[in-house]
Amino acid sequence: MTSTESGAAQSNRFALILAGGSGTRLWPLSRTLLPKQLLALGGQETLLQTTAHRVAQAFSPTKTVVVTNEEHVFEVRAQLGGILPDVAAAVLAEPLGKNTLPAILLGLDRIVAADPQAVVGVFPADHRIDNLVAWGEGMDQAAALAAEGWFVTFGVPPQAPETGYGYIHRGESLGTGSYAVLGFTEKPDRETAEKLLASGRYYWNSGMFVFRADVFLAAVAEHAPVLYDWWQTRGQRPLAEGYAGIPDVSVDYGVVEKLDRIAMVEAGFDWDDLGNWEALYRLGKRDANGCVVQGDVLALDCSNSLFFSQGSTLAVAGIKDLIVIQTRDATLVCPVSEAQRVKDVVAALKDQGSKLVEAHMTVRRPWGSYTVLEDGPGFKIKRIEVSPGARLSLQMHHHRAEHWVVVTGTALVQVGDKEILLTDNQSVDIPKTSLHRLSNPGKVPVEIIEIQSGPYLEEDDIVRFDDVYGRGARVSGESQRDVGDS
Amino acid sequence: MTSTESGAAQSNRFALILAGGSGTRLWPLSRTLLPKQLLALGGQETLLQTTAHRVAQAFSPTKTVVVTNEEHVFEVRAQLGGILPDVAAAVLAEPLGKNTLPAILLGLDRIVAADPQAVVGVFPADHRIDNLVAWGEGMDQAAALAAEGWFVTFGVPPQAPETGYGYIHRGESLGTGSYAVLGFTEKPDRETAEKLLASGRYYWNSGMFVFRADVFLAAVAEHAPVLYDWWQTRGQRPLAEGYAGIPDVSVDYGVVEKLDRIAMVEAGFDWDDLGNWEALYRLGKRDANGCVVQGDVLALDCSNSLFFSQGSTLAVAGIKDLIVIQTRDATLVCPVSEAQRVKDVVAALKDQGSKLVEAHMTVRRPWGSYTVLEDGPGFKIKRIEVSPGARLSLQMHHHRAEHWVVVTGTALVQVGDKEILLTDNQSVDIPKTSLHRLSNPGKVPVEIIEIQSGPYLEEDDIVRFDDVYGRGARVSGESQRDVGDS
Repeated sequence: MTSTESGAAQSNRFALILAGGSGTRLWPLSRTLLPKQLLALGGQETLLQTTAHRVAQAFSPTKTVVVTNEEHVFEVRAQLGGILPDVAAAVLAEPLGKNTLPAILLGLDRIVAADPQAVVGVFPADHRIDNLVAWGEGMDQAAALAAEGWFVTFGVPPQAPETGYGYIHRGESLGTGSYAVLGFTEKPDRETAEKLLASGRYYWNSGMFVFRADVFLAAVAEHAPVLYDWWQTRGQRPLAEGYAGIPDVSVDYGVVEKLDRIAMVEAGFDWDDLGNWEALYRLGKRDANGCVVQGDVLALDCSNSLFFSQGSTLAVAGIKDLIVIQTRDATLVCPVSEAQRVKDVVAALKDQGSKLVEAHMTVRRPWGSYTVLEDGPGFKIKRIEVSPGARLSLQMHHHRAEHWVVVTGTALVQVGDKEILLTDNQSVDIPKTSLHRLSNPGKVPVEIIEIQSGPYLEEDDIVRFDDVYGRGARVSGESQRDVGDS
Repeated sequence: MTSTESGAAQSNRFALILAGGSGTRLWPLSRTLLPKQLLALGGQETLLQTTAHRVAQAFSPTKTVVVTNEEHVFEVRAQLGGILPDVAAAVLAEPLGKNTLPAILLGLDRIVAADPQAVVGVFPADHRIDNLVAWGEGMDQAAALAAEGWFVTFGVPPQAPETGYGYIHRGESLGTGSYAVLGFTEKPDRETAEKLLASGRYYWNSGMFVFRADVFLAAVAEHAPVLYDWWQTRGQRPLAEGYAGIPDVSVDYGVVEKLDRIAMVEAGFDWDDLGNWEALYRLGKRDANGCVVQGDVLALDCSNSLFFSQGSTLAVAGIKDLIVIQTRDATLVCPVSEAQRVKDVVAALKDQGSKLVEAHMTVRRPWGSYTVLEDGPGFKIKRIEVSPGARLSLQMHHHRAEHWVVVTGTALVQVGDKEILLTDNQSVDIPKTSLHRLSNPGKVPVEIIEIQSGPYLEEDDIVRFDDVYGRGARVSGESQRDVGDS
């Protein structure tokens, strides 16, 4: 019996994928609005898609739940919809990013409704794992231990004294490749990490775990009573309500480290949390000069470097041990050995109020995407792509007129109480304060150029009257997190 | 008497500024269509403007001639027009780039017509010189020697064994700070350069010189008879005619090195030919960490580097001794010590047929400029800026329709036999094969967005019927050097 058959066949086995990370450790490629799990890092699939495919090996797609942030829910559904529709149908949105414990509780609501004694595997959506057979076997082993009441972690045999990982201290054997856990050490300093590595009894904590829902919830009730109370009242109101007020706490600090019966399954697979660009360099496919290269890059006599270019040409000559990540609006350059410095860069940009931490020039929306081509005094130019069948909200702007020119596809445009069909090179004016809406009734994408003009061209000058994506009508000037919306 | 008074007062003294360089040694900032002399490298003025101002200290603007390439003549006139209208009125265009000797002969035509025994100073437009008083004194000294029949060079006391410069071997003294020249050594290898430096009798050849026109022309007749014959027949036809067929020869190889009476004035000024980015780093204003920084750059713990960013954000962390030059469509990264490698980069890009060597995203034209914002399948989007009073040619395209939207200013648009005035956010359709023309009748710049659509969107689909800038009517598909024209 293969792990896939055994996994999917286990009727009480459920998976919970955590896809809520808003990490910027791979900035400038990852941004708040397009975090790591939603990126295809050199492969065809995004990390989220790869994670979903992997999880589907050992857990039924009909028993898999995904929790993500409200900002990313459309993108998460879109990425999963094409590969695992059952999983895409079970994407839950956090109203805002809390930590892992609230996210897990959000997902557990649906799981315990189906089976209060479900065996639940929890998986970050942004890690890289090789050797899927070993991974599936590990899941079977963990599920068996979880069924007995253990909280099961996965320990990765450490290959270096990494200071960026948590470590698991293994105790007595519970069987082949599984141990009781004596304790945890969070991100040690270098000296400590070397001691842990030398001891042979410490493992990297992969951040995946498997537990029985009832056992876990009892522990939450005991160790995180405020969160448990919030969770218990979910019958009286939507679970996400009141989310802003609940504590921001990780499952590790809030529950796991306080448990008695923790097990560790020794990972037979390779694992990496892709915590910074150095990992991408380390794991990437290197050329004869030891360089990992992606995009329009001209490299002359370079070695042991990571070069990534998107949207323009990168020419590098005589370079060693360097990371260069170039996107359309921002470039990062740092030594491979100092890849963790992206944290400082992102912090400094945030201090400056830079939008570069948040959004790319191209912003994906439920209905498609838009790209700011030019932003000048009194005018702004966007390329807008609308997916087949999609439509933007019915809206109005107080301070800007718009002019739309179709460059490809056929658009249905409502202005005031008129509707017109526009095709290549046809255009329409949208005066200030006119109600308007853009739809794509066709089978191919619509691309339009939008030229905005007016004294105030920020995204918050929008009044929404109707939105098929359930985004509430908003009053002009109201604060909104989904910058650059339409 | 200051040098300025003496210089401008000398009625037989003429200047010839060579502004024809099409260098890409400062790529990606310099391109074939926007070479070094036309750039403002950190200062307010372009190198051409600085050169013209410097020359005007010792030579009358009414006796100054500028030779440039036809591709750059509008830009050269525009840059000089605002500061020295007399010089701007004397800009001559080479039909294509030959070498320095043909360019000098082109300029001499006008000078010898005014004074066959003119004392002529020749100055590259793309060098950097400090200490203008010493420079003016050097000119006076050189002019006096030239009047006696000497061909006068300027030798810069060498400060390092540079291998990128030519060297002048000084002989007997001709007076304070001037010497007879024994010979020249072109770009020596390192070992030779060190010997030349140690000898104390070799100087860097600054590439500026002063001669008497009749003496120089006699030398051309003797040593470059083919070129002299071409020059002599200039009365029978426009001088520039037949330019393609004449030899490509530098003044140094063709004439100077064959002369008997060569003098050298020892430069009392600092000089640099700004041959690569290392020079810009060396001469730039450094911050406390030894970095030269220009543009939107975030530098954390970096030292001894040159960071330049145009059009997007550059974040650098933990970097030493590096050059990063970022433009909108291309970035160069190389160690400061390997700045000369830009040559290899440019050569490799040329081999690939890349347009990045030739043009920027923004291309300057006689009537203003345009920027390609987006280039997609079946459509292309440009931002076009038209200067007050300027107009594009009356033209027609076979394969594309265009849609123009005014974003600022007031445009006069002719389509077919109609003329209309368009202002902010107003637009017009230009069907395929329609005659059309864009003009700016106003006092402020006009900016429009042009959306092209059609199966073929290259710049050579243009038929011109009338052009105020004297650019000939062209047949669609004809080869043209001024890519991206309108």
